[in-house]
Amino acid sequence: MEIKILRDIFESNKQVAKEINELLITKKVYMLDIMGSPGCGKTTITDKIITSLKNKFKIGIIEGDIETTCDSDKLAIHNLPIIQIETSFFGGDCHLESSWIMKSLEKFNLNNLDLVIIENVGNLVCPAEFELGDDERIVVLSVPEGEDKPLKYPLMFNTSKTLLLNKIDLLPHLNYNIELVKKNIQKVNPKINLFQISAVTGKGFDKFIAYLSDNIEKKINHCSQN
Amino acid sequence: MEIKILRDIFESNKQVAKEINELLITKKVYMLDIMGSPGCGKTTITDKIITSLKNKFKIGIIEGDIETTCDSDKLAIHNLPIIQIETSFFGGDCHLESSWIMKSLEKFNLNNLDLVIIENVGNLVCPAEFELGDDERIVVLSVPEGEDKPLKYPLMFNTSKTLLLNKIDLLPHLNYNIELVKKNIQKVNPKINLFQISAVTGKGFDKFIAYLSDNIEKKINHCSQN
Repeated sequence: MEIKILRDIFESNKQVAKEINELLITKKVYMLDIMGSPGCGKTTITDKIITSLKNKFKIGIIEGDIETTCDSDKLAIHNLPIIQIETSFFGGDCHLESSWIMKSLEKFNLNNLDLVIIENVGNLVCPAEFELGDDERIVVLSVPEGEDKPLKYPLMFNTSKTLLLNKIDLLPHLNYNIELVKKNIQKVNPKINLFQISAVTGKGFDKFIAYLSDNIEKKINHCSQN
Repeated sequence: MEIKILRDIFESNKQVAKEINELLITKKVYMLDIMGSPGCGKTTITDKIITSLKNKFKIGIIEGDIETTCDSDKLAIHNLPIIQIETSFFGGDCHLESSWIMKSLEKFNLNNLDLVIIENVGNLVCPAEFELGDDERIVVLSVPEGEDKPLKYPLMFNTSKTLLLNKIDLLPHLNYNIELVKKNIQKVNPKINLFQISAVTGKGFDKFIAYLSDNIEKKINHCSQN
């Protein structure tokens, strides 16, 4: 009984994710889903992406939080369309679901956007199970979290296209083994695009932005067959 | 329909938690539930608690992980009874449930233990919703995670008895506002016992261990009414 219902939730989530994906192809909008532990740097990274790309692309933001509008408040200075999903409204959920993303997208004018950035709930477990119809899942792993996380939370790492290894400015102060984390990532997802960055100092960010910008352009400049 | 089933899960979890609590009173065993984000330092803290208290109390360990036995392997050097719960076996769950704790406790010889330490799955959201029948919930928050976490994940912070603010050895290298995090903690749970520690250097640990040791002694030396 219980299993059946769980299956229904995932099936229905997957179906809406598929519809979102088709909508974004028609509208030529690129969508990112940024995930990672609480405090790994998702908001600072989102802020840096916006600063780097807002003169090039039209951007909308979807902020997922259990409670508070802290993150939306921080991003409000950019004066871009932001939709805040407080999951406490849905019972304190630990993830975002595709139906809430669809509702959020309906509130944007997609004809006037190139890029939508979703900042997911801070959680290395549950959000990985819910497809949102995005073009690129980005998992953020900060070095103070340790080298073993890809092995301990494999679903998050093997469903992500890109990994941002953040807070590398702290490396001189930590007993951290970069080769070991690379080996662990390799075991779980050898195809993942890895960037070593510091969202605070900006180190390594240019390379990531060039890569991301390229991905966005490929989609929005692609001739639709419709 | 779905809501009903969710309620059943929580109700049944709560019932088993109550039974565990009663069992631990009878057996005079103190139980800790250590929770926090991935990489906040739960395993290092568990290791330090064991090192500090293993000559004073008889200790058993329950390790929760989605996958891998990394943490159990690290703690195995103490040569104490360890039970590893791999939640991937239960479908990759993001939390521990009381029925799994009960099964784990049945595998220990409780007559020969004073303290059971549960290291929960790395997650600041879901484990907070599942009572495990313990005497003390400890939430670990590491300073690189930022000052806003108590406001963003209030359930975790207001159901915990103790907060370990970990990795304070990194303070000189971070733009971190201790007064702000204290204010945020105060808003969510003014009664929480706060200790500022570094599990790596050992700073602040003595005070926490004295407090914990006192709590354990109170329970195990308490004359049973049976």
